[in-house]
Formats: sequence, C-alpha cells, structure tokens
Amino acid sequence: MTTHTKRPTVGMIGGGQLARMSHPAAIALDLELLVLCADMAQGAGLVVPGAVHGDPDDPDDVRSLADKSDVITLDHELVDLDLLEQLVDGGTPVRPGPHSLEAAVDKSVLRDRLQGLEVQFADHMVVKPGQQLPDLPDWPEGAVVKAARGGYDGRGVWFPESQSELSCLVGKITANGTTAIVEERLPELFEVAVMVVRRPNGEAVIYDPVRTFQRDGICVGLQAPAGLDPALESEVKGLAHSIADHLDVVGICAAEMFIHNGQPLVSEIAQRPHNSGHHTIEAATTSQFENHLRAVVDLPLGDPSLLVPAVGMANILGSSDSVAPMDLLAQATSLDPAAKVHLYGKTPRPGRKLGHVTVIDQEPEDALRRATAVANVLAGSGSPSVGETS
Amino acid sequence: MTTHTKRPTVGMIGGGQLARMSHPAAIALDLELLVLCADMAQGAGLVVPGAVHGDPDDPDDVRSLADKSDVITLDHELVDLDLLEQLVDGGTPVRPGPHSLEAAVDKSVLRDRLQGLEVQFADHMVVKPGQQLPDLPDWPEGAVVKAARGGYDGRGVWFPESQSELSCLVGKITANGTTAIVEERLPELFEVAVMVVRRPNGEAVIYDPVRTFQRDGICVGLQAPAGLDPALESEVKGLAHSIADHLDVVGICAAEMFIHNGQPLVSEIAQRPHNSGHHTIEAATTSQFENHLRAVVDLPLGDPSLLVPAVGMANILGSSDSVAPMDLLAQATSLDPAAKVHLYGKTPRPGRKLGHVTVIDQEPEDALRRATAVANVLAGSGSPSVGETS
Repeated sequence: MTTHTKRPTVGMIGGGQLARMSHPAAIALDLELLVLCADMAQGAGLVVPGAVHGDPDDPDDVRSLADKSDVITLDHELVDLDLLEQLVDGGTPVRPGPHSLEAAVDKSVLRDRLQGLEVQFADHMVVKPGQQLPDLPDWPEGAVVKAARGGYDGRGVWFPESQSELSCLVGKITANGTTAIVEERLPELFEVAVMVVRRPNGEAVIYDPVRTFQRDGICVGLQAPAGLDPALESEVKGLAHSIADHLDVVGICAAEMFIHNGQPLVSEIAQRPHNSGHHTIEAATTSQFENHLRAVVDLPLGDPSLLVPAVGMANILGSSDSVAPMDLLAQATSLDPAAKVHLYGKTPRPGRKLGHVTVIDQEPEDALRRATAVANVLAGSGSPSVGETS
Repeated sequence: MTTHTKRPTVGMIGGGQLARMSHPAAIALDLELLVLCADMAQGAGLVVPGAVHGDPDDPDDVRSLADKSDVITLDHELVDLDLLEQLVDGGTPVRPGPHSLEAAVDKSVLRDRLQGLEVQFADHMVVKPGQQLPDLPDWPEGAVVKAARGGYDGRGVWFPESQSELSCLVGKITANGTTAIVEERLPELFEVAVMVVRRPNGEAVIYDPVRTFQRDGICVGLQAPAGLDPALESEVKGLAHSIADHLDVVGICAAEMFIHNGQPLVSEIAQRPHNSGHHTIEAATTSQFENHLRAVVDLPLGDPSLLVPAVGMANILGSSDSVAPMDLLAQATSLDPAAKVHLYGKTPRPGRKLGHVTVIDQEPEDALRRATAVANVLAGSGSPSVGETS
C-alpha cells in the first residue's frame, strides 16, 4: 500500500462556536481538527468528531491534546501562557505563539508593546495592583474602566457614573491582582474591525474593514463595506497589518478600533477567529476560519476579498432561558429565504451568543437590517434592531 | 431545566463525499447528521461525529440507522427500495420516497414514468431480460448502451463500435437480469444540469442550469451561467420542475439533459446532492446541501440564486494510486489564492473523484479554466484541461 502525507492535525483549545465554525473549513482542506471541549453537548462538541471532553484550563488535558496534534491553536484567549510555553518547549508549535498571545490576553501588555508604532489608543492610565489611582484628566464624558485581563463580550468593562464608583471599581480590580485600565469615555463612537491573517514566515492577507455595532459591550452586528473614505480605509488596514507584524501573530489577528474625530484609536485585538469576521463565511472568497487554519498549518493564504457588493451580520443573542433558536427556525427561514442562519448548538441564556445570521445585499445598511430582523426572530426577542440602538 | 425542541436527526445512507459535504450545512442549521459508512477512514466517516460504521447494503444496519433518525435520506441511489418501503411502513419518513427514487435508480422506469409529460429522451429502445434485441434504426453515429440500473460515473454505459459488440453487450446486461437501454448516440453534445429542490408539500426552488463537461462518462467540470438563450433556459428549468413534481421528489432532484438541435433531451436524473451542484457551496445563496437538508426536515427552502457573475467547478480525478491531493495542497493553493479546494479524504485511485475546486470569476469559461488548472495540480495529472477535451 502506498503511503501518503498524513493530513495535518490541528488541536484547538476550546470548543465553542469558533471551533465549531472552523470544522467546515477543516473538512474542505482535509485537515484533522481536534478540539478540547468542556461540554460535549454544546458548540463544537456536537459536531466535530475529534472533540475531546476535557478542561481547556487543565494542564494535563491540554498536554494530552498537544500530544495528538501537529500544531496547537485556540478558540479563546483565556489560557495559561506558561503552559503554552511548555508545549512549545516540548516541540509542539503553538500558533499564535504564547508571547504574541500575551498582547491579546492583557490589554496593558498590548498598550506597552505597541509603543513606538504609529498606533493611537484613547487617552488612558494603567493602574497596576498595589498602585493608587492617580488624578484623572478632566474627560468631558468621564471614564471607562477595563480589567486588563479576563474580559470578553462586555464582561470586564464598566462605565462608572461617579468618581467614587470609579475608585471603587479600580480598587476591586487591582485587589484581585489584575491591572486596571482607566480610559477616556468617547461619545458617539464609530467602531471598525480589521482582520489580518499571517503565516509563520510573515506572509499576510488583510480583510477589508467592517463597521461593528455593540450594545452593552457585546457585538450585536456588523456591516461591510464599512463606509470609510479610501485614505482612512487604507490607514486602518495598514495599522492592523503593522500590529500583527509587530506582535508576530501567526493566524488571525482581529484589530478593533474606534474612529474618533477621523482618527483610528485601537481598542483591543484578538488572535483567533473573531465575531467581526463571521460574514466572511459567505461574503469573502476565503473565510476567516479557513485562512486561520491555513496560517496555522503554514499553507499559502487564501484571497480575502469580498465577493459581493455588501453584507450584514447580526448575532442571535438569547432573550431568555426558555427560547431556543431551533424552536423558531421555520419561522425565521420563511421570513427571508436569502438569510444564512448559523446556530451554535448552545443552551439559551439571556444575552448569550446563540448563533448569527448573514445577509448579502446591494447596500450594507439593508443587509444588516435584514440580518437583524431574522436574528431577532431566532432570539425570540422583540429587541430593537441594530439601527435603532447605534 | 427548560426543555427545547430537540434538533432534528437526519440519517443518511452512505458516507461518501455527498454526506461529507452535507455536514457543514447541518452544522449551520444545528441539524444532527448521522451517516452510515462502510469505511470510517474515508469521506464522511472522517468528519461527521454521527458516522456509524456499517454496511449501507445491510438491512439490519440501515434499520439501526433509521431507529436513531427522525428522517432518512441518501447519499447514493444504489439502495434496496423494498427495505426503504419497510422503513416507511415502520414509521420513519424516507425522503426522497422509495417510489419516487425508483425513477432515479432505474433508467427504464424513468422513461416509463415520464411518458405523458412534455419530456423528450434521445431515440432509444428498452430491452428487458429475456427479450431479443430488436432491429435498430439507422442511427448515423451508432448506439450507446446503458444498463438501466447500477451505473454511475461512466460505469454502466458503453459505446459499442459494431453491431456484434452491441448485441453482445445487451446480451450480457440482460443475462444478469438487468434491463438494457439502447440509445442513439448523439455527436457534439452540449450538456446541462438543472437542480430542483422540493419539500413534502410540493414547494420548490429551481437552481439556474449549469453547463457540464464529461470525459469517458465522468463529469470533469461545470460552468455557470450555462450560456443558454433565455427561452431555452426557461424551458429546461420548467422541464426539471415538472419532472420533480411528476415523480413527487422530496429533496434534491438533479436533471441532466443534452441539448440537441436546440432541444433538451433528458439523460438521467439523481435524487440526492449531485456533482453538478457543488459550485453552489460558494456561488449560490443557499447550497444544494443545505437545501436538500431543509427539504428533508421540511423547513422553508433557501434562495437558490447565484451570488456571483460566474463560477467554474472542476473535479479532482485521481491520476494514480500513489499521488494524494494532500501532497500537492501547498502547490495548488499557491497557484490561485482564490481557488476553493474541497478534498474528500479518499484513497487515491486512477479516475476516482478525490475532490473538487471551485473558482468565481467574471466569465464562466475563465472560472472553469482556473478551477481546472488547480484541480489538475491536485490530481497530480498533466491531463488536458476541460476546454481542450470538450
């Protein structure tokens, strides 16, 4: 019998929707995807045959995944970086690498590392554990407080209404041994995200920026094209590229930015497939999931171009414990036959991301409005559409 | 704990590439896909967690699949129709139904059933077991001989070069208890395929026709739009729709037709996702795989429209036992960053379909030429491109 190149095995730490949506890309390229899942009855655990029940936070479980994998990657960043260093020392490539990943895990590290690049953040102060809160500048809209580590989907971010509430928040964060970032609150923000995918040799592709919409710190939707003027579009793409290069990211790097007075301010970055790239499944030549896997196994990257005039994506955010999108699937699919529904197989909870809906249209606003209408049906919510809240 | 609608379980008989490519569509809609696989190390067996090792021809294995499924469907038509009838009698819906499926399984049944519809076939004679071959008309290009059952990918079709070879072939087929069809051989054929998807209530969507290219009876590629004039396009879509209605197909019905002197002649039909619909994964709003699953679980159907100006799809046909597409993936993906590669995880054999490549472009000919170039690299073949052979 002839022997052939074994298909590469990618071990992914975490078994949520990002691992779940990576599987179709792995199927197409015949890559073996192993995922380490805390719950086999949800997300990737339901749909990936290489799903292994284990704790992504347990060193033994992670080492066991690495033993079976040619390369390790992640579907979330709440990981033990020392453990990842041990995997690298043991001979298993980890992509993105632990040093690079630290800048996604820790917002204060990100700010440190990008000093010297032409990258602006909102005006901010870093308060380390043991330090006192310094006097704040006179920010007209007040401050936003962020825990440097551990936040996601609106967790780890607070909007204090008074100086005393602010001090109290910072005190609590730092007392837990976490660095706090106190940042100027900016009104009426226009938010964009840019995804860069980068191979180990530095070869990179850059997706066009998308405009994102948040509610209570959770992404509710996006539209593309983002509607930036060409000079600004070029600037934000260049910024994202230089960030990914500077941090030596391998795989996806999603840079989230505010546009304030016509200038991009970096908000945070992710080093994994990201909510702001879900539209690429249908609307781009190569999806973020496929390009992340290509980068991780060091294959040439795919064309990131948008294939269509415009696209909108809306998240399905749970409205209660008792309404599951599956109950509403017939209603939602009959509402708009062109809507692309993605369900994550997760137990419903209020505010939880249970899936998303993508719609292609001629204009980004129309695409997002249609996607939101279908997502709201699937959420069982009469919640206002994205357009009304942003 | 709140209980929700259980996600529907679709049992698919067969675990080849059609089952494999159905899994991403099942993931998106959170349908549970079970597949009955003869070989867990190939095709769907590698990538579907609900893959069950068993023999699609073994009644007990099929019954066991049905016991776990809300509905049964198929990834191939070489099935025991009586067994499917038993499943229906036992309370498991089978979609498409066995009576309908008989017209896809048996080319003589198809010809019988469609009498009375405005459907033309090439001039032909049906020779049943025990019958003598009648005198043939004076067909200028001679005859093609088809076994009514059991053929696919060029198997079960012969091009005899003499009257004696023809008689001998028909004798062999009928001696095996199979009906033979002797059909006028037509030169310079322009071949198209039209896919219709139909729900149990008769609601249907029709995909635009594609132009298909065969070599030695095996589909090597397709392009869309097919380049038919609007009246002919409308006619072939109407024909495919009336065939699916008349046969009461539930799920996908792919109708393959020759265009001869400007008239469509039906060649054969399939009642499962079909090679002539692989381009719909990237190029249509709703893929054939998703729409087949929607029909089978009786969800509203998705929009079948092409999203892009033009698309080409080329099969990766094995060139030898010793060349696997995985060995050539880096070379192929660097050749064309916009090519969408789909590998099936199958052991290479000469002529075997090991995967396919889809390319979106402005013109169908360009799209197919590019797809063919990448597919040829992955096949390890210097075989001529589609354009040179057709």
